[in-house]
Amino acid sequence: MSGKLKSAVLGASGYSGLELTRILERHPRLEKPVLLRREGSDGAADLAEVFPELSGNGGYPLRPLSWPELKRQGVQLLFLATPHEASRSLVPEAIAQGLRVIDLSGAWRLKHAQHRAIYSFQDADAVTAAELTAKAVYGLPELNGDRIASAELVANPGCYATSVILALAPLLRAGLIDRERGIISDSKSGVSGAGKAPTSRTHFVSVADNLSAYSVFNHRHLGEMVEQLGLDDAELTFAPHMLPIPRGILSTIYVHLNRAMKPAEVESCLRDFYSGRHWVRVFATPKLPQVQFSLHTNYCDLGFCLAEDGRRLVLVSCVDNLVKGAAGQAVQNMNLMYEWEEREGLQ
Amino acid sequence: MSGKLKSAVLGASGYSGLELTRILERHPRLEKPVLLRREGSDGAADLAEVFPELSGNGGYPLRPLSWPELKRQGVQLLFLATPHEASRSLVPEAIAQGLRVIDLSGAWRLKHAQHRAIYSFQDADAVTAAELTAKAVYGLPELNGDRIASAELVANPGCYATSVILALAPLLRAGLIDRERGIISDSKSGVSGAGKAPTSRTHFVSVADNLSAYSVFNHRHLGEMVEQLGLDDAELTFAPHMLPIPRGILSTIYVHLNRAMKPAEVESCLRDFYSGRHWVRVFATPKLPQVQFSLHTNYCDLGFCLAEDGRRLVLVSCVDNLVKGAAGQAVQNMNLMYEWEEREGLQ
Amino acid sequence: MSGKLKSAVLGASGYSGLELTRILERHPRLEKPVLLRREGSDGAADLAEVFPELSGNGGYPLRPLSWPELKRQGVQLLFLATPHEASRSLVPEAIAQGLRVIDLSGAWRLKHAQHRAIYSFQDADAVTAAELTAKAVYGLPELNGDRIASAELVANPGCYATSVILALAPLLRAGLIDRERGIISDSKSGVSGAGKAPTSRTHFVSVADNLSAYSVFNHRHLGEMVEQLGLDDAELTFAPHMLPIPRGILSTIYVHLNRAMKPAEVESCLRDFYSGRHWVRVFATPKLPQVQFSLHTNYCDLGFCLAEDGRRLVLVSCVDNLVKGAAGQAVQNMNLMYEWEEREGLQ
Amino acid sequence: MSGKLKSAVLGASGYSGLELTRILERHPRLEKPVLLRREGSDGAADLAEVFPELSGNGGYPLRPLSWPELKRQGVQLLFLATPHEASRSLVPEAIAQGLRVIDLSGAWRLKHAQHRAIYSFQDADAVTAAELTAKAVYGLPELNGDRIASAELVANPGCYATSVILALAPLLRAGLIDRERGIISDSKSGVSGAGKAPTSRTHFVSVADNLSAYSVFNHRHLGEMVEQLGLDDAELTFAPHMLPIPRGILSTIYVHLNRAMKPAEVESCLRDFYSGRHWVRVFATPKLPQVQFSLHTNYCDLGFCLAEDGRRLVLVSCVDNLVKGAAGQAVQNMNLMYEWEEREGLQ
Repeated sequence: MSGKLKSAVLGASGYSGLELTRILERHPRLEKPVLLRREGSDGAADLAEVFPELSGNGGYPLRPLSWPELKRQGVQLLFLATPHEASRSLVPEAIAQGLRVIDLSGAWRLKHAQHRAIYSFQDADAVTAAELTAKAVYGLPELNGDRIASAELVANPGCYATSVILALAPLLRAGLIDRERGIISDSKSGVSGAGKAPTSRTHFVSVADNLSAYSVFNHRHLGEMVEQLGLDDAELTFAPHMLPIPRGILSTIYVHLNRAMKPAEVESCLRDFYSGRHWVRVFATPKLPQVQFSLHTNYCDLGFCLAEDGRRLVLVSCVDNLVKGAAGQAVQNMNLMYEWEEREGLQ
Repeated sequence: MSGKLKSAVLGASGYSGLELTRILERHPRLEKPVLLRREGSDGAADLAEVFPELSGNGGYPLRPLSWPELKRQGVQLLFLATPHEASRSLVPEAIAQGLRVIDLSGAWRLKHAQHRAIYSFQDADAVTAAELTAKAVYGLPELNGDRIASAELVANPGCYATSVILALAPLLRAGLIDRERGIISDSKSGVSGAGKAPTSRTHFVSVADNLSAYSVFNHRHLGEMVEQLGLDDAELTFAPHMLPIPRGILSTIYVHLNRAMKPAEVESCLRDFYSGRHWVRVFATPKLPQVQFSLHTNYCDLGFCLAEDGRRLVLVSCVDNLVKGAAGQAVQNMNLMYEWEEREGLQ
Repeated sequence: MSGKLKSAVLGASGYSGLELTRILERHPRLEKPVLLRREGSDGAADLAEVFPELSGNGGYPLRPLSWPELKRQGVQLLFLATPHEASRSLVPEAIAQGLRVIDLSGAWRLKHAQHRAIYSFQDADAVTAAELTAKAVYGLPELNGDRIASAELVANPGCYATSVILALAPLLRAGLIDRERGIISDSKSGVSGAGKAPTSRTHFVSVADNLSAYSVFNHRHLGEMVEQLGLDDAELTFAPHMLPIPRGILSTIYVHLNRAMKPAEVESCLRDFYSGRHWVRVFATPKLPQVQFSLHTNYCDLGFCLAEDGRRLVLVSCVDNLVKGAAGQAVQNMNLMYEWEEREGLQ
Repeated sequence: MSGKLKSAVLGASGYSGLELTRILERHPRLEKPVLLRREGSDGAADLAEVFPELSGNGGYPLRPLSWPELKRQGVQLLFLATPHEASRSLVPEAIAQGLRVIDLSGAWRLKHAQHRAIYSFQDADAVTAAELTAKAVYGLPELNGDRIASAELVANPGCYATSVILALAPLLRAGLIDRERGIISDSKSGVSGAGKAPTSRTHFVSVADNLSAYSVFNHRHLGEMVEQLGLDDAELTFAPHMLPIPRGILSTIYVHLNRAMKPAEVESCLRDFYSGRHWVRVFATPKLPQVQFSLHTNYCDLGFCLAEDGRRLVLVSCVDNLVKGAAGQAVQNMNLMYEWEEREGLQ
């Protein structure tokens, strides 16, 4: 017996699922994960058929999901990289089977019904769904580390939400932001954030040499942000944009401070908050993060510019939407759940 | 009465159709073209719904195709920017209605049945189809100008074929190429060449930061090339590649010459052949065309490198696949058909 | 005598200069413009050496700047597409020579010394410079049309400034914006906005797959915006970003309204303000402009999203930085100066 | 004492040097490498100043090169990621100091003076240079593994050369290629292959939406290819192209076979040749490698298409120019030199 954890991934044939599979197979504490296929998925027998870049490293067999089979194999932890609706309907059974679950979808992130309405979930068993909603821990390790450690169900944050919450949490919790004047996040994401399904929006010719705003005021990640940051809905304006790049997010966040501050104070506030945390990097002004710096890493990079008046503050926050914004953060959560060092398997 | 030609476009909601519509509406000899919608197409009432970039310039109403209505409006010339199968079935009726037709699809380009087989056409009336196939003129103005002038049906060339044929015709017709040693065209195209339908191949994430070869030895344009150049099938190897750019083609073509030549001789051969033709530009060695140079123009740019041995010749040929490779060439053909200057409406 | 205007362009070898040259040579009211070379420039004898895409359309000879020679040729209008410092030192002599000048640089845009300080100009003749500064008309045709018509010296606006001012002017002039809560423009530009000089910032590998913010709070165009919009400096926060695209600007602009409005009211405010103006297009919500829609056109595209509270408004404004943001606007200004229709030469 | 190898890198501030540094610092057999700065280089004190993406992982101090200091630190292996001329002048001293050297430049790759002429080296000590040229082992592990194992000086192959040689070696060594009919490699590379220096060629606006051929018939890597493959110079035509992507190479290679073959025979020839080698992946027809598949890996991916005549063969070969085409291959060579498994540190 290896003493290594046995895990399974459902939904490996999406972009986040692929990224997750690659991280998990190198993780020193894990056996090679079991890859599961949903019913009705495209039916590849091996993930390398979907992603030829995986060939040459042994097989990646995709097996149909079967609870008894998972139990027989000793799987303890299930990652879901499935659509929101699929996660919403699968999780109750998975928890009932005694599995711990890290769900990369939006199914269990939102506590408030009015925020959750945007997903139009149809819960078969409303009572269980309500219980699980209450139990689910929002998987942002830098904020909710203790509760993640003991969670049965971790709701892995949205990519945009990760970039925005990590930038704002230190200043908001310190009471430094004038919430009444409003907070704005102008966020820009690479196309993998829109998923792998081919649509006219993701057609190369529609995206290349272009930039477009979308879902202004009504993006699904807005609810996560206000819930986690303790804001009123109208206090945060969120405008996402689609960038002509495959991956990466940059959020430019505009706030007014309650008092005139100096750059060194702002920097200290950020650094102190993330002291001892490896996966947030704070840049000293005037250096700013760029999308490239955190690509293919689990870092969230934070930087800022402060106006001469010491009141107007612009925060810049970058993550790789598939790593810190999805698969990497899921692994970081797993590390917390099993009391491993939070860097393990992520470097 | 304006004295201007009345034309119609079927298929304006594709990339080539849009490009064509934009050129035609500025053409000084034409009235604003009638835009037609195929049955079962997405049903936009105005082309600006499909392409918002058209807004603000008056309407672009899309009307259902009706032969009597076209006659009533005095339409004399019909452009088809439709799928191959649609063009194959529509043209017999259009010709029967007395219209002249410029077809941008591959439906009528190929004379030889074995080449045409790649399209798997199902002709309702085989006799008429055979007659039209015989009558159709391959619309490469620099080669077939006289026959285009009097044509009822012009089969507008494929984009790749345009770049390859124009590069090779001068040297082949002068008997300078050693055909037995084989001719190779390594061609690279932007994504608009693959059409507007969203597929996993045209997804931004599949194309960006990538290059891929496809349809090596069996691309549909290969038949056009060998037919127009008078080659045996095995004498030309054609390997297309998909570039991470929206538009533009560069073909790098490799030949052996029958005798050692000097660069000035090669240049003269190209220049003499295209003497008096506006839309082919010959670059003097060592300058080579690049994709950017001919973007958004109707030029085919030709350049070359000759090995020190004077025998191995590399030709470089660039076109914008949507202009000289499609819509612009269609307009150039129209100019010939109506005895207008070949530059009209194209500058 | 042709009756056509004789013009000259200094600085045609930059991106804006090339765009300008291409527009001017097709303008029906103009003779082919005289292209001038600054002393110490790279010394190409013909612009087609710098931009091979120009070959095949006759020559584009670059001649050294000589005032007597310009007079001899009957040049009446001089376009400057030169660096700021060069424009600042050349314009006094050009005006003294009796030329009308449209300057694409930032040399004469700013009225207030504290804004102009960012350029560190060294005026040889401070008195003349002050007079010209006072006389120079900020060349935004939709705002300053009358004064442009009679101007000797037109200071063509900055590209970012064009996108921001045109979006905000209607609402600000109608007193609908709560200026005290602050206005934010998060703007994104293609790389041609950074000029043609190769630097580590414009290296392909630095830009591709990336996005970066820069010059937050202290970009040169900020002064233009506050001066033209009548704002206090601290009322406008401007954060530019460099996009991995060659050209195009999208500004996302955040304001609070003084009272709750309905989308139709906002749309009316924009439409009424630009009523009768061709080069601003207003999109009806929920449609938003995208960078692609205005590329290679002189349009400024405006759209917006209004929060449910009717108070928080997000404006989206797009221009092609080389056309409406530079060369096209310069031609639009010329059209006003010579009482031609403002569309002439720009379609 | 750790028992780990002590190495140093000169030239870490270039693209290959950065890639190498990142691989070396994770290599389980190595101590963290010493990073050296050449005299006259930009003088950063820490590599994270040049590449901010490195921040947060401890320091990357850059120290001036000093032979006594290297000795004092116990450095045994020196990597050079320096310009060709710098490597040519530094290696004699490094070898004299008893170091083993892996040189990523072109300085020591070529055995024949007529090929080396393209670099115009000025050797201070011609005798030593000749000796080292003779001793240097061309570091392509799949071909020269035994000699690399005992080499003092490994000349790491060029990126293009790696892709071409690995594709052709199996068939050429088996005598299956008709060399007289000529071999053609049409190769396409991302921009990082052109180095980090900003030039008009590497400006984003010059590269994006573009493709260009360059150095046809006279690229520096051509000599390596013919020397390693045992070809006459005129037997191989090599045409490189610059792709609008940051990294990755795809070579499309055209050969005539000496006899009609079946696809399975070609596949066997490739597979047998690379049997037991981890870093070459052979794709079964009709699957072809794409640039994306090997990005950020040390794989060389090979695929092919065979014409129906069984004679005309098109090989497709992909590498990441910074990994298998540079830094990864250097580490693979190191693994051979120290008798470690060839995968170590590369997964």
